[in-house]
Amino acid sequence: MRAAIAACAVAFALVSGADARELPRPETFTLRNGLQVVVITDRRAPVVTHMLWYRVGGADEPRGSSGVAHFFEHLMFKGTRRIAPGEFSRTVARNGGDDNAFTSQDYTAYYERIARDRLELVMGMEADRMRNLRFSDETFASERDVIAEERRQRVDNNPGAVLGERMRAMLWPHHPYGTPVIGFLHEINTLDRETALAFYETWYAPNNAILVVAGDVDAAELRPLVERHYGRLRPTRELPSRSWVSDPPNVGPMRVTHRDEKVRQPSMSRTYRAISYGTDEGRQAHALDVAIDILGGSETSRLYRALVEEQRIAVSASAGASTGGLGGGSVSVYATPVEGVSLERLEAAVDEVIAVFLRDGPTEAELARAKSSLSAAAIYSRDSQESLANIYGTSLAQGESIDDVVNWPRDIEAVTRDEALTMARATLVLDASVTGWLLPEDEE
Amino acid sequence: MRAAIAACAVAFALVSGADARELPRPETFTLRNGLQVVVITDRRAPVVTHMLWYRVGGADEPRGSSGVAHFFEHLMFKGTRRIAPGEFSRTVARNGGDDNAFTSQDYTAYYERIARDRLELVMGMEADRMRNLRFSDETFASERDVIAEERRQRVDNNPGAVLGERMRAMLWPHHPYGTPVIGFLHEINTLDRETALAFYETWYAPNNAILVVAGDVDAAELRPLVERHYGRLRPTRELPSRSWVSDPPNVGPMRVTHRDEKVRQPSMSRTYRAISYGTDEGRQAHALDVAIDILGGSETSRLYRALVEEQRIAVSASAGASTGGLGGGSVSVYATPVEGVSLERLEAAVDEVIAVFLRDGPTEAELARAKSSLSAAAIYSRDSQESLANIYGTSLAQGESIDDVVNWPRDIEAVTRDEALTMARATLVLDASVTGWLLPEDEE
Repeated sequence: MRAAIAACAVAFALVSGADARELPRPETFTLRNGLQVVVITDRRAPVVTHMLWYRVGGADEPRGSSGVAHFFEHLMFKGTRRIAPGEFSRTVARNGGDDNAFTSQDYTAYYERIARDRLELVMGMEADRMRNLRFSDETFASERDVIAEERRQRVDNNPGAVLGERMRAMLWPHHPYGTPVIGFLHEINTLDRETALAFYETWYAPNNAILVVAGDVDAAELRPLVERHYGRLRPTRELPSRSWVSDPPNVGPMRVTHRDEKVRQPSMSRTYRAISYGTDEGRQAHALDVAIDILGGSETSRLYRALVEEQRIAVSASAGASTGGLGGGSVSVYATPVEGVSLERLEAAVDEVIAVFLRDGPTEAELARAKSSLSAAAIYSRDSQESLANIYGTSLAQGESIDDVVNWPRDIEAVTRDEALTMARATLVLDASVTGWLLPEDEE
Repeated sequence: MRAAIAACAVAFALVSGADARELPRPETFTLRNGLQVVVITDRRAPVVTHMLWYRVGGADEPRGSSGVAHFFEHLMFKGTRRIAPGEFSRTVARNGGDDNAFTSQDYTAYYERIARDRLELVMGMEADRMRNLRFSDETFASERDVIAEERRQRVDNNPGAVLGERMRAMLWPHHPYGTPVIGFLHEINTLDRETALAFYETWYAPNNAILVVAGDVDAAELRPLVERHYGRLRPTRELPSRSWVSDPPNVGPMRVTHRDEKVRQPSMSRTYRAISYGTDEGRQAHALDVAIDILGGSETSRLYRALVEEQRIAVSASAGASTGGLGGGSVSVYATPVEGVSLERLEAAVDEVIAVFLRDGPTEAELARAKSSLSAAAIYSRDSQESLANIYGTSLAQGESIDDVVNWPRDIEAVTRDEALTMARATLVLDASVTGWLLPEDEE
């Protein structure tokens, strides 16, 4: 499926530290119609990655039309006046390329990787479908069924996904992040063509897009192509605001238990509200990323060592920070007990690990290890034109600047023990959390 | 304060059973501009109750403008071209009358009670402010502060209200009933005049209103007055739909704990999703009202007798059905432990009472007692022109018909033991519930 809901794509924004202490700085320019262009030159091979990022996602959907952003990710492959339905991907493949697309709360992105001399081919097709999408009523209805089926498979048949969806709704009671990107089934089933088209015509516009091209090309070479294909596209005159509604203050710890016969292995998770790169000040998100890596980012983390290795009460134990969001972030903790250990006991042990961490803070060794772990991932990303394109596209679409990305490794390295501890203490607060238990149908 | 948030006003719709097995049937007529008029003649005294009900409430607010429906309840007293700010209520009082207003999720209502020979005076003023409201920027801003202060006093300084607000948000994760009628403080503080005026101009219109007049008047006498004052008001051409977004399926039991230093007495509450008179089929809501009255409607109920009288572990224990809503209902259970009893123990005892009730169902004696208890309340309502006006206004604004109201006592009497038990079993399902614990700051 091309319809990867890229809730996890934000993780890319985190894996960008580097021993060189900087990520490569791309060239940039902006067309008169507002299209922002980012060029990451990489001459190692005659290939290019062409990614078009729209500053629109699930969080921008009209109330009652959840799923429409992701629906468009599908419809974009259904043809224009020039391109027949399904022909887009077939053309890319016939030319030795690869294409994909994904939707998050914050953005929708379209991706092609292809030989350098076919760049203009995919660019022409991508520019064409920005404004000229065509689909029949039959296509609309049948694709709606495809998406409903996708939801059933990904969410409704997956008890962990069902639980996670409700936990997000509880964590974001008013903010649109509480509504799933894939959409509620009853709203997918009643999406109408008129609402969908209005969404497309408003948001799919050059002044709401970021074109990232990485690979065997530079800005001087690229600019004439971009002008030719994207330059004449009409901008949307008054782009709607992306200032989403925000949540009321925390009230206290929330919990939810989900039982399902398909659950083989009980587990617990907890999600805390957090700042994000889109909402923080100074180095707060960097400090939080470091702190949560120490708490649960790897098999050397606090949670893993305590619960899996020392106490031997958990099969797995981890924590992760979702700090990419334009509208805020979250931190999640997961643990799965060994046979015979109750979720109650496991949760108490998780709470104890967190309490000690918040009391004493990380050691200098842990701090250094976390920073270099984040850096190592960044080193890897510099070697992949796709990863770099992804990092720049995600970060820009989520409200960061080129400088924020370039300096990310340096800023991670600068995080102090105090900064990490302060952010951990500000974030790992039960009053700002939802705890979820996943259990088999008949287990107490 | 005239700004009674009438979340509880829906209860009026329930207290309408009668030994006569019917409520008095009012006369009705409709103006050409769409105004629906209901006349309940009562010649016992030369007074009238004039109530104007708008089919708009908190649930119709634009996302991000929570509180605007209730805000208008205030602004409606701020004057028109003819009436100076504050003059409305002063005029009513100067003429020996009384006025008030209230807002719920489903409706906004304006009430005057006055001598029969002053009816035309209040009718003229009420009709005037339906379309001709005027207020300055200063009035708007200062009334916004009044409402913010009202919210602080009613909700933010009241831990039980804070907990209840979050429980509703959890129970209705997507449906607008999850947003408080009074509005979130941060949204009250940023309400703008333009949004407010658009709301008023759309919804405050004769074709979106129900005029209920009770008292010393009949339809033949009333009609010329209504034509004169309301007849020339312009209807809204395309009233927006009131089909609100609905919630995804239940996932499992939800819980939330709220601690506050202002809490003197711990307590627990639980709210279940339920049908309502606006959403049910046949006699379901009647059966649910009867069942919940038996479970917790009085000091002879299951919960009270078991927890307060027999086990002596609770200071209070009750249950109530909120079945009036146009968009759905809920059932709530409350209990307060005696000193030394934990909420955990109390909740287990509540669950046991419910389990036995759902297993065995009500006795015939309980069924008869519940029906006559609901009837007794209805008998009382027939003697109060204000209560009758309230019942008809609320019920019509919440999607019921005159017949539904007239026949309510008969339908309550018709509820069988099986119907009551079936609705109790369908409703008192933990998977469709939120349990809230209210605790002092430092208690475990």
